[in-house]
Amino acid sequence: MDLKNTRINYTKNEINYNDIYDNPFEFFVEWINEAFLNNCLEPNSFVLSTIEDNIPTSRVVLLKNIDHDGFVFYTNYDSSKSKHILINNNVSLNFFWPELEKQVRVIGAAYKINDNVSDEYFASRPKESQLGAILSEQSKKIDFNYDFNSKLIMLQEKYKNKDIKRPLNWGGFKVIPTKIEFWQGRPSRLHDRLLYKFKEGKWDKSRLSP
Amino acid sequence: MDLKNTRINYTKNEINYNDIYDNPFEFFVEWINEAFLNNCLEPNSFVLSTIEDNIPTSRVVLLKNIDHDGFVFYTNYDSSKSKHILINNNVSLNFFWPELEKQVRVIGAAYKINDNVSDEYFASRPKESQLGAILSEQSKKIDFNYDFNSKLIMLQEKYKNKDIKRPLNWGGFKVIPTKIEFWQGRPSRLHDRLLYKFKEGKWDKSRLSP
Repeated sequence: MDLKNTRINYTKNEINYNDIYDNPFEFFVEWINEAFLNNCLEPNSFVLSTIEDNIPTSRVVLLKNIDHDGFVFYTNYDSSKSKHILINNNVSLNFFWPELEKQVRVIGAAYKINDNVSDEYFASRPKESQLGAILSEQSKKIDFNYDFNSKLIMLQEKYKNKDIKRPLNWGGFKVIPTKIEFWQGRPSRLHDRLLYKFKEGKWDKSRLSP
Repeated sequence: MDLKNTRINYTKNEINYNDIYDNPFEFFVEWINEAFLNNCLEPNSFVLSTIEDNIPTSRVVLLKNIDHDGFVFYTNYDSSKSKHILINNNVSLNFFWPELEKQVRVIGAAYKINDNVSDEYFASRPKESQLGAILSEQSKKIDFNYDFNSKLIMLQEKYKNKDIKRPLNWGGFKVIPTKIEFWQGRPSRLHDRLLYKFKEGKWDKSRLSP
């Protein structure tokens, strides 16, 4: 399948290097807000990459919180990504908003968050998602004809009038970044790239060649 | 910034495990075709992850060819991703089509393709992209006020009536996969996942728990 001629000449926006934030989190919040305001699809989704045996692995994850020092997502602590992180907590995050021709690339280290924060988020999820978290033994091989629906109906019945407690093997990670790059697509592939690196307690800024 | 309540309940499609391809490339071509037919944004974009010093790094890249055994993309051979690959050629690819609630996760090894294939693809690119490839010293630090446009105009003048030859430091990689997972979002986070693993000369299929 030949895709030679599929490309877009990016023209929508640019980075104004004369007016940039000292703190990349403020810049990130500006961009993700723009993604929400412009009705980008899944604006808080990102590709999380981890390492297993010197091989990278990537999957889409949803960002659930950004605070002054990190990016928070939730998962099953028995999932492959969690197992990878427990051995090597270096991860990368890639946010891509094709509607805005924008990309944010993050490198950092992931840490388990406090149980009470995970409890609080779990309690806020829709009941169906909570039941899904209980039902799935993440990434285990299962039969092709395995029927989640009948099990889901049983669980729905069981928990009809009851709150569901967070399973102990389910919770959050926070990624504390050391590098954050902002990428804005530009005409002729001469894209704008602004890199923040955390060095000696502060964020150093530089512009990169496309 | 709290994103607790941003989620979609995926309902658009499912994987019919009773009717699946033996060859994951056929399945991949079906899905990427569907992405083109449904006018997904940047349907041939994917997140490429490489490893540097035991840390993953990710960026968006465009797929330019798929054949019977691999996925082809082009880049500057002096780029960070190329340097990473020359030291450790294990990479992952993540295709995400949120419009279809579909994701394909690939793990494989990347190899430089033949120069004549890169020549052919370079020759097929728009002149502006060719000039962009000449102009960019990929990922090098540059001044905030560096002016690509004046240089682009000079080059446009220089090459007005001339073909542009592929720079020797620009060309393709093919990723030969060992694992390809097809992910279809499903209600209650109980997603469909079908994994192909290449073992002893053939593709082994299994279903994974969400």
